[in-house]
This record gives sequence, C-alpha cells and structure tokens, in this order.
Amino acid sequence: MKFDVKRRTDPERAQNRRNQVLQAAAVCFARSGFHGASMSEISKEAGMSAGHIYNYFENKEAIIMAFVDLEVEHVTGQLRELEGKDDPLQSMIDDAPKHVDENLEPEYFQLPLEMFAEAARNPKIAEALRIGDQAAMDRFRPIVKRERERRGLPVDDELLDGRIDTVVSLFHGLPIRSLHRPQVNRNSLVEGYRVALKALLLT
Amino acid sequence: MKFDVKRRTDPERAQNRRNQVLQAAAVCFARSGFHGASMSEISKEAGMSAGHIYNYFENKEAIIMAFVDLEVEHVTGQLRELEGKDDPLQSMIDDAPKHVDENLEPEYFQLPLEMFAEAARNPKIAEALRIGDQAAMDRFRPIVKRERERRGLPVDDELLDGRIDTVVSLFHGLPIRSLHRPQVNRNSLVEGYRVALKALLLT
Repeated sequence: MKFDVKRRTDPERAQNRRNQVLQAAAVCFARSGFHGASMSEISKEAGMSAGHIYNYFENKEAIIMAFVDLEVEHVTGQLRELEGKDDPLQSMIDDAPKHVDENLEPEYFQLPLEMFAEAARNPKIAEALRIGDQAAMDRFRPIVKRERERRGLPVDDELLDGRIDTVVSLFHGLPIRSLHRPQVNRNSLVEGYRVALKALLLT
Repeated sequence: MKFDVKRRTDPERAQNRRNQVLQAAAVCFARSGFHGASMSEISKEAGMSAGHIYNYFENKEAIIMAFVDLEVEHVTGQLRELEGKDDPLQSMIDDAPKHVDENLEPEYFQLPLEMFAEAARNPKIAEALRIGDQAAMDRFRPIVKRERERRGLPVDDELLDGRIDTVVSLFHGLPIRSLHRPQVNRNSLVEGYRVALKALLLT
C-alpha cells in the first residue's frame, strides 16, 4: 500500500533508527571501550551503513552525549515519581531493594562506567553530566527540604546539600562495589542502605 | 666509578623503569582511554623505546593489572594503619575529611574510573579486583566485628557484610559524585559522610 510507505523524514522512524544506533553503540562500547569502538564497528553492529549513521549522529561523542541525555531523563523520571509520593523520603528508604537491584546489574553499569571514564577526560561530556546533575539537585533539594521541615528536622542549605550529595554518592558507588564483589549479599546490602538512608534523610 | 654502574638486572633500576612506564601509561590512559592508548604512545610518553617497555610489561593489560595491584596495596596500607588505631571505627569517622579529600581529586580518580570501565568488560581484570577486594574484606571484617562487640552492638555476619559493603560503596561513589558536581561543598559532604559512617559502623 503505497500511502503507508514512510520516508526518512518520518519522526517515529528516525527515532527508531536512532535507538538502533544507540543499542549497537552500547554493545560496542561495552566490548571495545569508547575509544576502541569505531564508527564502522558500530555501523556493522547496527546493520546500517556508516554513512547512514552520520544522519543521526555526527560522531562518537554525539552518541555518548545521547547516553548522557538518556541518563538525565532516567533520573528526572525517578524524581518526578518521588515527587508524587505521600512520603517521598520514607518511600526512598522503602524502595531501597529496587534501587540496589538496578545498580547491581552488570548490563546496567557497564555503559555508565564507560561514560564516567570518558567524562573524566572530555570536558564537553563532563559539562553535560554537570548540567543534568544541577537540574536533578534543583528538583531533589526542595523535596528533601519540605519533608524534613514537616518533621521538624534541620534544613539549612549546607546540611541539606551534604546529605543529598552523600545519598547520591551511595548510589553511584554501588555498581563499582558490585564489580569488586559480584557475590555481594543483596539483602544485607539493602539493610545497610536503609540504615544509611535513614540516618541521612530522617535525622 | 666503574663499580657503581648498574645494569638492567639491578632490581632498583628495574623498579624505577617500571614506575616510569606506569606514570606514562597513567597519562596516556587518562588522555586516550585504555583502548585508545597504544603501546607506542606510552613508550613515547615514557621516553623509552617500545621494545624496552616490553621488558617490563608484556602488553597493555599487564599495565592495567599493575594499577590494580597498586590500588590493592593502597587499600591494604590503609587497613593496616586502621588496625593500629586505639579506636579504629571512631578513627574512620574522624578521618572522613581525609578520605573525602583524596577521593575528590580529579587526578586521583581518572585512572580508577578507567580501570573499572575496563574491569566491566575484561574478566581477568575483574578477577584481580575481586581477589584484592576479598583480601581487604578479610582484613576489615574482623576489625569491625571486634569493635562492635566491644560496644555491645550486633555482629552477625550478614549484618556486618551489609554495613561494610555500604561503607565501601560510599567511598567508591565519591569520585563519580565529584565528576557530576565539582563545586560540591566539601565540608557539608564530610558532615554527610560522618552521619552515614556513624550510623553504619556504630549503631
């Protein structure tokens, strides 16, 4: 049916193609590292010509920037969900098993580790991480402040930021912990996280 | 003085040469990534011929394994120091500023991030991290157990491991936090770390 044939300009098709490239790139970065993976390796993995890939991503850096954007979207989604809870801080503590589990999955952390290693040497990528983090802090801080106020706990800015930065470090460190200790006892770890989160958020 | 002239077989000279290669490799890995840096780039940075480097390291993997060994030695040194303290757990909390500071230095964390990204895809390097971590756990666990017993706190194995894994995650996450937020308020962060460490170790 001729009228159903869609061209490259179709936004949905373009989005699918972009995702196809990102999935292939994730596989190649995991296998060969960001610097070791070539655009031709990625195009082969995606089953597309290299020329075609350049329609969606100017270069490898643009691909890793797209992963940064996805990570920022993921965090924004989690914070939006948190905002909708009746008791957001208690929910974070209750949901520790979910957050621990998602950070213990090797297929989840391989790409972020690659992204962080690259950000440590590429100022453009580091800048994108920072902007995303700033937006997340601006969303998370008022939730923590409001909930602590409601409980009569101290809410000065420095204290709040120190507590939040420590909570975030805790989650950032989990994939690296799991890399060092894949046999980690998940239930004990969840209990440890609950103890730390409770002390940081509710005292 | 002829008798002072030392040959390649001199262990101290070999050690110096090895260190020279490691320093050069750290620069190159930071600049180009583990997979992007070539042995010839490393030899150029070290001011040695590529052939000469192969006397000390068989390949790039052997170099990154040497960094893993250095990291393991560093952690072992810290734990040995801790064992010698009158009140090791309180010392850890008191020394939070030192530990936070050393993990916030970009020149400190670039190489570990590279090492972790590589470990996430290279089973041999992951295995070396695991063996080192196991040795560190075997040294740290009895300290925590003894000190908690002395205070009449619970010491069952699962609880202990969960607390320790959480403490370690906290420190592993710090470099990544700093990457996202280089302007982090160091003093507030130290306070956050103290709150978490105290809850994890002394409750």
